[in-house]
Amino acid sequence: MAQKIVVALGGNALQSGNGPATAEAQLEVVKNTCERIAEIVESGYEVGVVHGNGPQVGRILLASETAKDVTPAMPFDVCGAMSQGYIGYHLQQALKFALKKRNIEKPVVTLATQVVVDAKDPGFVNPTKPIGPFYGEEEAKAIAEEKGYTMKEDAGRGWRRVVASPIPQKIVEIDSVKALWDSTIVITCGGGGIPVIEKEDGSLEGVAAVIDKDFAAELLAEMMEVDTLMILTEVEKVAINFNKPDQQNLDHMTLEEAEKHCEDGQFAPGSMLPKVKAAMKFVTAFPEKKAIITSLDKAIDALNGKTGTVVTFK
Amino acid sequence: MAQKIVVALGGNALQSGNGPATAEAQLEVVKNTCERIAEIVESGYEVGVVHGNGPQVGRILLASETAKDVTPAMPFDVCGAMSQGYIGYHLQQALKFALKKRNIEKPVVTLATQVVVDAKDPGFVNPTKPIGPFYGEEEAKAIAEEKGYTMKEDAGRGWRRVVASPIPQKIVEIDSVKALWDSTIVITCGGGGIPVIEKEDGSLEGVAAVIDKDFAAELLAEMMEVDTLMILTEVEKVAINFNKPDQQNLDHMTLEEAEKHCEDGQFAPGSMLPKVKAAMKFVTAFPEKKAIITSLDKAIDALNGKTGTVVTFK
Repeated sequence: MAQKIVVALGGNALQSGNGPATAEAQLEVVKNTCERIAEIVESGYEVGVVHGNGPQVGRILLASETAKDVTPAMPFDVCGAMSQGYIGYHLQQALKFALKKRNIEKPVVTLATQVVVDAKDPGFVNPTKPIGPFYGEEEAKAIAEEKGYTMKEDAGRGWRRVVASPIPQKIVEIDSVKALWDSTIVITCGGGGIPVIEKEDGSLEGVAAVIDKDFAAELLAEMMEVDTLMILTEVEKVAINFNKPDQQNLDHMTLEEAEKHCEDGQFAPGSMLPKVKAAMKFVTAFPEKKAIITSLDKAIDALNGKTGTVVTFK
Repeated sequence: MAQKIVVALGGNALQSGNGPATAEAQLEVVKNTCERIAEIVESGYEVGVVHGNGPQVGRILLASETAKDVTPAMPFDVCGAMSQGYIGYHLQQALKFALKKRNIEKPVVTLATQVVVDAKDPGFVNPTKPIGPFYGEEEAKAIAEEKGYTMKEDAGRGWRRVVASPIPQKIVEIDSVKALWDSTIVITCGGGGIPVIEKEDGSLEGVAAVIDKDFAAELLAEMMEVDTLMILTEVEKVAINFNKPDQQNLDHMTLEEAEKHCEDGQFAPGSMLPKVKAAMKFVTAFPEKKAIITSLDKAIDALNGKTGTVVTFK
């Protein structure tokens, strides 16, 4: 039986930190990323792909807000849906070709994906995730008044809207992922998914929130019961004492060790911490399975046991 | 065996002509539209959904161009992909709930969908489809010079970019539609699909073009070999001598009759003509099947043979 894997792509898999923030530049980065994913498929793995959308959804929102006197601004959930179309399109086009070059004729498709969050998630009480443009204090307060947004001062750079970053509870389109998985490479939960809450009548409603894509990937990995959750980022291995003289790169962490490092504040919130937390959640749910955190370029080596940080239950 | 149907939704199924052009207003219209689609599903049909995106992609492009000094403008193929995410998200959220109210637990999902067009399509030589903002003559000529766009004067209202409206040749993600069809309501080919051309090396490349959604729906109907292609628009029946004292609403057209009406210039280009042409193409491909053109509100009645214009081979 083929090993199943969910691959979570970080921002560097979609856009170069130095390059321009254009769609054309994104497509070039995505082409390279898809060569790496195609290698994983070529090695015999069944792959599902989740990707981040931070910079992209930020720019969609920025364009929308900037043009608001010309055409109505889009709500944030819709911006997320738009970013899934944008990034998913590039990924499915490039991955299909990377596979074709390897004589693999496998369908690749992006699903618009809603992810249910709890309306009572503590994140909604004290939102912390900044999104969209910077404003002056006065304008920020007027926006807060008019729209009911939470606006916060952001490190001396101005005021920004902040939204919740709630924990994902349920992937609405999971049945479609399941129906496709065996035959198709599915790109889903882009940007962590379009955040929706369940209303009393059973309907869903989009909310302004940012779901961490690593947690969404973990949820997908759980629901699909895959063998490996692979979180790709900029570094080859998770490190403790990161960027210090005694930095130590980790080949392996048990759940207990990971827990201790988290308690010791070894991992930066919003960066390595959610990746380690997602890995821990996965091996807690499936103690016999594993999570791997490594870089895009080392993904195949890590799957072959040569590098990366492997997280296991024991 | 359940009857299979492809439903093509026109602009009025997504946005009210009188209402605001906001996402919130779209969602309200979409909720009503999805009640009608749910009725079709409830009647036992297997449904695939295609939708237009004219106003939506126009506004995405407008916002993007308006904000271009703040964040890079998006190419038109990417705007199309974004509109698929935007509209598809609303449709799948609303349709899922409309089904749930009818105790139908059926997955609904939107696929980011690329549609191959011929790089040699005559549309590319003489593009006619206006997109995006209006410009003054001088600015328009500067843009044409700088970006190689074709810019045309638009009925005294200013200059606009015009793009090709090529004939759809192939739905790239058709295998995923097929894998999902039996279990799932698939929303695909949104806006006619993201237009791509096939390059010599076998890769696909997005192009600036507008694929008519009725032709894309027809192609989907052909490839899925559905029983009925249903094109929903603002009028209950196709008419000849439209808006004249001797207007005649048609219950039925054979291919030969439809051909004659087209030759007589009975149908407006960009409006009823592509719908009739798409219907004709479908019954030409499958002489034993039928196409129906009617309004959203009359869809179920038309399926029951009570109204609408039915197009058949003979």
